[in-house]
Amino acid sequence: MSLEKQFTEHFSKIKGYEEAIALLYWDLRTGAPKKGVELRSESIGTLSAEVFNLSTSDEFGELLSSLEAEQATLDPFVRRSVEEARKEYDLSKKVPPEEYKKFIILKSKAESVWETAKEDSDFSLFLPYLDELVSSTKKMIGYWGEKNGSPYNTLLDQYEPGMTTEILDEVFGKLRQRIVPLVQKIAASPNKPKTSFLYEHFPKEAQQDFSRQMLEQLGYDFEAGRLDETVHPFMISINRQDIRVTTKYDEDDFRTAVFGTIHEGGHAMYEQNLGEALSGLPIETGASMGIHESQSLFCENFIGRNEHFWQQNFNLLKEYAPKQFADVELVDYVRAINESKPSLIRIEADELSYALHIMVRYELEKGLFDGDLQVSDLPKLWNDKYEEYLGVRPSNDAEGVLQDVHWAGASFGYFPSYALGYMYAAQFKGAMLKDLPNFDELLAERNINPIREWLTSNIHHHGAFKKPLDILKDVTGEGLNPAYLAEYLEEKYSKIYQLDN
Amino acid sequence: MSLEKQFTEHFSKIKGYEEAIALLYWDLRTGAPKKGVELRSESIGTLSAEVFNLSTSDEFGELLSSLEAEQATLDPFVRRSVEEARKEYDLSKKVPPEEYKKFIILKSKAESVWETAKEDSDFSLFLPYLDELVSSTKKMIGYWGEKNGSPYNTLLDQYEPGMTTEILDEVFGKLRQRIVPLVQKIAASPNKPKTSFLYEHFPKEAQQDFSRQMLEQLGYDFEAGRLDETVHPFMISINRQDIRVTTKYDEDDFRTAVFGTIHEGGHAMYEQNLGEALSGLPIETGASMGIHESQSLFCENFIGRNEHFWQQNFNLLKEYAPKQFADVELVDYVRAINESKPSLIRIEADELSYALHIMVRYELEKGLFDGDLQVSDLPKLWNDKYEEYLGVRPSNDAEGVLQDVHWAGASFGYFPSYALGYMYAAQFKGAMLKDLPNFDELLAERNINPIREWLTSNIHHHGAFKKPLDILKDVTGEGLNPAYLAEYLEEKYSKIYQLDN
Repeated sequence: MSLEKQFTEHFSKIKGYEEAIALLYWDLRTGAPKKGVELRSESIGTLSAEVFNLSTSDEFGELLSSLEAEQATLDPFVRRSVEEARKEYDLSKKVPPEEYKKFIILKSKAESVWETAKEDSDFSLFLPYLDELVSSTKKMIGYWGEKNGSPYNTLLDQYEPGMTTEILDEVFGKLRQRIVPLVQKIAASPNKPKTSFLYEHFPKEAQQDFSRQMLEQLGYDFEAGRLDETVHPFMISINRQDIRVTTKYDEDDFRTAVFGTIHEGGHAMYEQNLGEALSGLPIETGASMGIHESQSLFCENFIGRNEHFWQQNFNLLKEYAPKQFADVELVDYVRAINESKPSLIRIEADELSYALHIMVRYELEKGLFDGDLQVSDLPKLWNDKYEEYLGVRPSNDAEGVLQDVHWAGASFGYFPSYALGYMYAAQFKGAMLKDLPNFDELLAERNINPIREWLTSNIHHHGAFKKPLDILKDVTGEGLNPAYLAEYLEEKYSKIYQLDN
Repeated sequence: MSLEKQFTEHFSKIKGYEEAIALLYWDLRTGAPKKGVELRSESIGTLSAEVFNLSTSDEFGELLSSLEAEQATLDPFVRRSVEEARKEYDLSKKVPPEEYKKFIILKSKAESVWETAKEDSDFSLFLPYLDELVSSTKKMIGYWGEKNGSPYNTLLDQYEPGMTTEILDEVFGKLRQRIVPLVQKIAASPNKPKTSFLYEHFPKEAQQDFSRQMLEQLGYDFEAGRLDETVHPFMISINRQDIRVTTKYDEDDFRTAVFGTIHEGGHAMYEQNLGEALSGLPIETGASMGIHESQSLFCENFIGRNEHFWQQNFNLLKEYAPKQFADVELVDYVRAINESKPSLIRIEADELSYALHIMVRYELEKGLFDGDLQVSDLPKLWNDKYEEYLGVRPSNDAEGVLQDVHWAGASFGYFPSYALGYMYAAQFKGAMLKDLPNFDELLAERNINPIREWLTSNIHHHGAFKKPLDILKDVTGEGLNPAYLAEYLEEKYSKIYQLDN
């Protein structure tokens, strides 16, 4: 059997396992009976261990080396896949197995301690675990070897290949200089949108039907996916022809389901439109966490919160909730769904202030890994930065430094991807306007097809064949530029809050 | 690690895989998007191959031999599990791998040819495949070695351990002598039940709610299972705390869902009540296909079609379909749901004539394996026997010899289990009446608990720790006795059709 064939057969086996694991997980989050959960975890554990074995076996390492020796003659998709597989292989293999195991156990303990600490709003409980997570991660970086010149860059690269603190310092700095004054002007504006009508009772079944229609408008293929209810919404790829969306229904705030579904629909649109050439390869996935988020945010904000999108859809919405919106004008509806209000909690943040939440976390992580910040300094620094950037100060650790699970899982370096998603999306929108200057008209006509096709040929199609910053460069002709997001936010929010009046 | 521990760890790994396979299958049958099916089959194939490898590896063979050498000192549940594992191991290992593979491919081809042949109602298309399936199965029996003195007994033993043609000839003969005259009397009876009201429109959602209530009355634990819709209903064990039921809704005949759900609920009741001591072992399953069927049929017929069960439940049913049953008396409803009419199709048969359908198949299979019956003789013989036993003659092969998929999958020896399920159930009912003489009153009060508890302690609890004929002996004090089923049918149908009037 040829080396390439051995490689693709190896991954088709891994994909078979991953499909099962994904379905076991999806089922657990959408309706598995609660008593079955304990054994379910064992089943997921058994299969995950097997995937780990397949991905890190010595035989597989030898296959990679043989392929690397013939790099020049390889099919380009296989060549790029070998590169990705090597990266994953080294991440696991460079760490001594005993330490790797200890680290997994530490993370699992830390997550359960974090839960209690958050419930009790007591950082001191979590402190020793977070301290050990940071020092263990530093030790891992020692094994992996530094990438791009600093320990924290090594972590950034795992989620967003090629991303560095040098880039982030600059773009976050520029973005903050434009967002913070905007947040302050909005806080001072007397022209606040009326929002009370958002919170009226909207029956779940009606929300469900409307959410399905939103997915259909986006071009989501229901013959290659489905929509289900869950507690913490997510998109999941079961296989390339089975891409599932989940959502949550709050009968007192329909926005949770509608914008949540559109957001996850954006992730699904990415996965449903990966190129055929990637089939079965490890690069049959999104280019990075940030690029993935750019697609969900593009759908949620640049489509879903655009006034033109609602020109006809507001009438459709009224069919599902006629009393709720009987006396509401389109313009007031659009202002309401674009309300901006600085908050303490990241996952409740609006699109204007979201990036500020990320900057707080980024600066703290950078301090921990590249600077001399101590874990014990985190709570106070967190609160100070929230006050400085957002004008709000947490009154306890639960609504401050303990709010996110990421650090308990040692996912240091992950947060920046969220903000990158916003910047990528705005920059893609800038490039799209050159090809589709009638973007707003398309939305008004509910003709999303040309928009989706543009995203597919420029982004979705390539999967992880291209790296995130290469996609950005190829599509927009420039590097990461926060001006697109800043301009979009300034223009939009000046209008919503009538800041020039 | 002790040998016992190695053995249980091995099976906990296999159970992990089997959980994933079961869920992949369940999902495929309850709502997986259609485009994802092709890759889904690959995933199931990958995991199934791994389970096969784990169950037939040389290492596992050595472990079995080591355990067998220490048999006397083993925990009894492990000892019995080793016996079962050995049986499965030998079934796979005694056949040369190349032949085993050819047989798998033959079955898969034959199934698709059978589909076409059935569609075209043309046995000649299927004939060469069926011929090869029979001769290949005979060759397999050569490798396995004959069990209980004849080739067909070897096959029977695989589905119903200990079952032989000697037993079946006797019990089927006796049963037929009592069923055939009853069928003839019913056909001649002028007292046919009115059934037109059964076929009125009954909305799916209402059927769904009512079906859930039926499962709850049976004691089905919804925290360890769920009810979903499918095309060909089944029960499936995902893990011991996750036992799922599926059903089908026909809005023009509510009986499909209601009695189908009760039937599958009986299978689920078995799996939900397996003893704790069996956890993780290969004997954590039903004792045999026939015993499993006895539990579903007990629920469907001895509970679900008993007039007392409907004493209160008919009023509940009326709440869900008030117009449909407005002018129907309980007695007429009970007569209608117990209508008996000889038919050509096994899966549409009522409880009186069902066993006759099985006898036709049993006699033909026995002729093929133990006698000199040729595959080409089947269509005519099939039709002759239908005419003799049921008084109806198929007009083509689709409604005759081609109706069932079983032979295309080489599942020779499987059919008798269905009829055994009826006989076991009736015999269990006889024993139950000694402990619960108030059986009918319990049903009338909808107090199924004592009945379920009796079934659990006598049957469910033991799983496959005991063999089917041992369970029968322990519970009823005798061997297989068809008189219980015959008496039940005579008494019931004499009343329904007022045969003595």
